[in-house]
Amino acid sequence: MEKSPFVRIEKGGVASPKGFTVGATYAGLKKAGPDKLDLTVLYSERPAAAAGVFTQSKTCSPSVTLSRQRIARHTARAVVVNSGCANACVGPQGLIDAKDTTALAAKKLGVAEEDVLIASTGMIGVELPMALIRAGMQKIALNASAGPAFARAIMTTDSHPKEQALKFQLEGKEITIGAACKGVGMIHPDMATLLCFITTDAAVEPGFLQTALKHAIDQSLNMVSVDGDTSTNDTALLLANGAAGNKQIKAGTKAAELFQQALIAVAVPLAKMVARDGEGATKLMEVTVEGAASAADARLAARTVAASPLVKAAVHGGDPNWGRIMMALGRSGAAITESKLSLYINEICVFDKGVPVPFFKEAAVISMKESNVTILAKLGLGAHGATAWGCDLTEEYVRFNSEYST
Amino acid sequence: MEKSPFVRIEKGGVASPKGFTVGATYAGLKKAGPDKLDLTVLYSERPAAAAGVFTQSKTCSPSVTLSRQRIARHTARAVVVNSGCANACVGPQGLIDAKDTTALAAKKLGVAEEDVLIASTGMIGVELPMALIRAGMQKIALNASAGPAFARAIMTTDSHPKEQALKFQLEGKEITIGAACKGVGMIHPDMATLLCFITTDAAVEPGFLQTALKHAIDQSLNMVSVDGDTSTNDTALLLANGAAGNKQIKAGTKAAELFQQALIAVAVPLAKMVARDGEGATKLMEVTVEGAASAADARLAARTVAASPLVKAAVHGGDPNWGRIMMALGRSGAAITESKLSLYINEICVFDKGVPVPFFKEAAVISMKESNVTILAKLGLGAHGATAWGCDLTEEYVRFNSEYST
Repeated sequence: MEKSPFVRIEKGGVASPKGFTVGATYAGLKKAGPDKLDLTVLYSERPAAAAGVFTQSKTCSPSVTLSRQRIARHTARAVVVNSGCANACVGPQGLIDAKDTTALAAKKLGVAEEDVLIASTGMIGVELPMALIRAGMQKIALNASAGPAFARAIMTTDSHPKEQALKFQLEGKEITIGAACKGVGMIHPDMATLLCFITTDAAVEPGFLQTALKHAIDQSLNMVSVDGDTSTNDTALLLANGAAGNKQIKAGTKAAELFQQALIAVAVPLAKMVARDGEGATKLMEVTVEGAASAADARLAARTVAASPLVKAAVHGGDPNWGRIMMALGRSGAAITESKLSLYINEICVFDKGVPVPFFKEAAVISMKESNVTILAKLGLGAHGATAWGCDLTEEYVRFNSEYST
Repeated sequence: MEKSPFVRIEKGGVASPKGFTVGATYAGLKKAGPDKLDLTVLYSERPAAAAGVFTQSKTCSPSVTLSRQRIARHTARAVVVNSGCANACVGPQGLIDAKDTTALAAKKLGVAEEDVLIASTGMIGVELPMALIRAGMQKIALNASAGPAFARAIMTTDSHPKEQALKFQLEGKEITIGAACKGVGMIHPDMATLLCFITTDAAVEPGFLQTALKHAIDQSLNMVSVDGDTSTNDTALLLANGAAGNKQIKAGTKAAELFQQALIAVAVPLAKMVARDGEGATKLMEVTVEGAASAADARLAARTVAASPLVKAAVHGGDPNWGRIMMALGRSGAAITESKLSLYINEICVFDKGVPVPFFKEAAVISMKESNVTILAKLGLGAHGATAWGCDLTEEYVRFNSEYST
């Protein structure tokens, strides 16, 4: 195996790449608590190429609508994010408030309003409390070492912040990519994830930047399912400001290939963090499908298993009840030939080319007590593979979500 | 409103129509218990027209495969059903065992093997214990009043049997339709339901019988979701033996219309029973969509809301957190225009043409303590409607499904 060209940056995040700073404050949108933050601004000191992918929901938040419009210009200077309020399903006021919020941030930063993107997360059906946001924005102070504050300020029911950063050499220049994301409930992203922000100091041609983001998200956060429910606010944004001084990365080059791999290397650990921190979760479930007839089939099969409530409940109980995995594969819509299919739980073969294996059940039960459970399905129909991530379904998930708004 | 032409038969079931008898026994496939039954035969004294709809799963049980083959002949004399073992994902032995089981039943009944259909339900990945089935079949004695025994023998995790029967007048003849079904987990039927058996003494043209069954199931059991997981063994069978002496019912006639309505009137209460008895459930949730742009959209929207884990958890907690309903509608794939959409929980309007209604939350919370919760979404886009049924998601569902096979 080749040595990875990517070096992880300890405690790195969105402010790790050159030329990005962050400000965050507690504006009063979430319940107060020690160290709570709920309003944050990510700022690029120079114009950045910008790319985004968003929820496919038809009841999407006006914050998504506004960012989707503005990202069409392929450039941005800043992102303002609030947690505690999704700004979704509130009628025409939602778009007015989203615009006002970006205007407040633009004024604070001294940039044009249309260069500010926005994302919101929290309760659906509640208007943004603009007086609080107006006051909060005044308190925001930019700081190049405030990346961790950004990751904290975007959290809702997350138990901990989720960040990543890495650096690599490209044609004599050091390129850094940083990222933060959140999201532990209503997580079954559809062409985007709940909230994910990636920064890089690389200079990247905007068209390729969009393609590269889409591809990286499709292999990472779009393969996560906590509960099968897709949010109204899913947003992933990528800003590339060129501060690294590299020659602009263009599609079809070796540099583009390296950049793509680096993006995936940042996004996959975030996907695992989201799955492991799923509401009420105690275990990370990694589902790999090999030998699928097409790439689409591989994705569909892996994701259906990772999203199945019955598989999730079995993983919770440490129950090697592989019939449920077969059920999920069978209903996934992917091409399946039972006589060619083999199944492994934590590397123990339980079903071999169409026939159950009399495996040592105790060994499987013991292996499933670990906090990571891996499921591998070899379909035997082609050369395509995919990996999806989920978590176990617990009593705590139900308890938590039975009491959310009351 | 017109008076219904249909008269419910108290404690009626599959043996209510003329010419149908049932035998049931405990063969030892399920854990023993007082009054337990796990092997049953439904017999038509004369050749019956037969129709069936089955799971779309690609890992379907060989019991499904065999019945699907035989139903192509549009005629049958008997159905043999076992509970406690799904006969799914067991390799080539599955089809051999399914055939042997029908052969044993055929010999017992003195009919041709290909006139016997089969359905199995229970644990996936376990072979049918043929010695037990062989011995059990000897004990089976047919009885015209054993309909309730059939409904009990097909149960797995069901807490109670699910039966229906009604009668109506058709051109001077009394027609009876009876039915039994089961299924409380792995319930998100795809073109069929877990197990459902309908009998009638009407004479019905076989082609129309199939159309009518499909249509009735699509409006009833196919609109139920307990957990979003589709079984490997879903089967719905309808036998029409003509013992009522009516003129054969043909498509496109008034008689066909009446028969179709009668079938739906039998199937819808069964669908509600399945939803209410969902694993761990404490509440029945009825989701109606009106004003959809197409019939397909109406079905999709209603079913997505009824299947959403977050909506189910909110219903469990009696939480009128309608943002989750909007989320589910938004991700459903149905055409949605937020500004035209209105939403009601237990007849309380919470969202009116795109704008949240400041409703009296306590009233909604109190109304949601009832064992029935109704959700109505008026999409305002067309004239199509649909109703779906689900249940709440409870800690008990998770606990139960964490411990199933170990």
